[in-house]
Amino acid sequence: MEVIDGEEISSRVREEVTDDVARMDRTPKLVAVLMSDDPASETYVRMKREAAEEVGIDSKTVHIEPDAPEDELLSTVAELNDDETVDGILVQLPLPDHVSKERAIEAVAPEKDVDGFHPFNKGLLLEGRPRFVPATPKGVVRMLHEHGVDLEGEHVVVVGRSDIVGKPLAALLFSRDVNATATVCHSRTEDLEQHTRAADIVVAAVGVPEFVTADMVSEGVVVVDVGINRVDDELVGDVAYDEVAEKASAITPVPGGVGPMTVASLLENTVESARLRDVSQDSSS
Amino acid sequence: MEVIDGEEISSRVREEVTDDVARMDRTPKLVAVLMSDDPASETYVRMKREAAEEVGIDSKTVHIEPDAPEDELLSTVAELNDDETVDGILVQLPLPDHVSKERAIEAVAPEKDVDGFHPFNKGLLLEGRPRFVPATPKGVVRMLHEHGVDLEGEHVVVVGRSDIVGKPLAALLFSRDVNATATVCHSRTEDLEQHTRAADIVVAAVGVPEFVTADMVSEGVVVVDVGINRVDDELVGDVAYDEVAEKASAITPVPGGVGPMTVASLLENTVESARLRDVSQDSSS
Repeated sequence: MEVIDGEEISSRVREEVTDDVARMDRTPKLVAVLMSDDPASETYVRMKREAAEEVGIDSKTVHIEPDAPEDELLSTVAELNDDETVDGILVQLPLPDHVSKERAIEAVAPEKDVDGFHPFNKGLLLEGRPRFVPATPKGVVRMLHEHGVDLEGEHVVVVGRSDIVGKPLAALLFSRDVNATATVCHSRTEDLEQHTRAADIVVAAVGVPEFVTADMVSEGVVVVDVGINRVDDELVGDVAYDEVAEKASAITPVPGGVGPMTVASLLENTVESARLRDVSQDSSS
Repeated sequence: MEVIDGEEISSRVREEVTDDVARMDRTPKLVAVLMSDDPASETYVRMKREAAEEVGIDSKTVHIEPDAPEDELLSTVAELNDDETVDGILVQLPLPDHVSKERAIEAVAPEKDVDGFHPFNKGLLLEGRPRFVPATPKGVVRMLHEHGVDLEGEHVVVVGRSDIVGKPLAALLFSRDVNATATVCHSRTEDLEQHTRAADIVVAAVGVPEFVTADMVSEGVVVVDVGINRVDDELVGDVAYDEVAEKASAITPVPGGVGPMTVASLLENTVESARLRDVSQDSSS
């Protein structure tokens, strides 16, 4: 059994991004909009900002009071859309209850939506011609690729259908860029273990600690664990790691698996955004 | 074995649409833009127009010379976007080689894109909150539902990943509205027959005559045939009908299966567009 080391692979990706940024004639810029006092959200935003700065991406966080009206968030996003120096805009989720997540995400200009959450970008992804692949699905495919797993023709079973992982990952998997055979399972799936046992690769993204157990997978399976659950002050994935690792040919750990890949993929998207924006400005001038 | 009668089911849907239109205080309007001399395209456009008129939808076709510049198509679409009397706009595919299909589709205002082909609408579909479900996937799910097939929890294997059938159908199937477990297979899938044999329901949408054979499916399977192939002046589906019908519990014929459902679904989308546009005008006034 091999452990797929997200720390090691993501540090290689970040080095590539560092080189890419160094070769550009300007510094890409990523702005996070944080409308929350939640310590977890603050931590996520800080981690992304630090990771951006480490690779040479200019980064800043705009704070909006959680009790401010929705319009304040929307007008802040509109200003960032118009700001030529900004390449990527992240609206940190979750948002307060009185703010529409959909309106907030749709307010971001699709060409600056480095999260890949805007419906227009989701549509491009479904069509197999993505502009920005959401960071976690992108990180999952990249880490498998870097570990030497050839996804073409393989049967990947995705457990979970969230808007930021399961659904976009499925679209990425069955695209011509990846060519995997993809199955999406979820809470209403009958005989779930029949599906996961038939898989070459299982991706667990349900948000339930140790949901995938050894009896649910076949000998030699590759397992990717997207879950990050806090249990008794410890981080636990969606996979019962010890028992599943005994049957798997390769598995991602939690922490140190998909998590760091997600941040690295976001940095890649930001550099890609800067490039695409430069090209479109060149061609329009 | 039961034959799932698309003619009969679609005529019920069209009756519903007729009643819906009769109850509206204005007549919905559908406009097709045809930039082709291809007799098949002309036939499709005429069929849609006739079906629209039959249910009381106002319908018209705008012809553009196949050798006209792309801009002429784009400005025609822009005029239709601005025309308050128009609820639905169809750009008939295929387009001439010198015209970008992507630009043409993206030119249609998403709120008039009753084909559901605009990336924004595809993204909403992937997120499980569709505005317009593309007509063929919508028709497939409707005809199964009307035939009494409960898709919730069932394993549906979609063979084919086209932009207008396979991909949007997968997104519709794994949405919370349908709750099926969906697998997307395609030309690069290994052991295709292993996947199709594991399915409760097989949807064939590959565009290859009689591609799905009896040895590829299990006893009692439900089979939906999306293919319409012309072989020796006869219409043949993607399923070897006679032999597969012997194993299936239910199967759609070609012709008379998915085809008529597709047209009926387009009419539903047009009425839905008229309703949504009336609501958004009421709320903005």
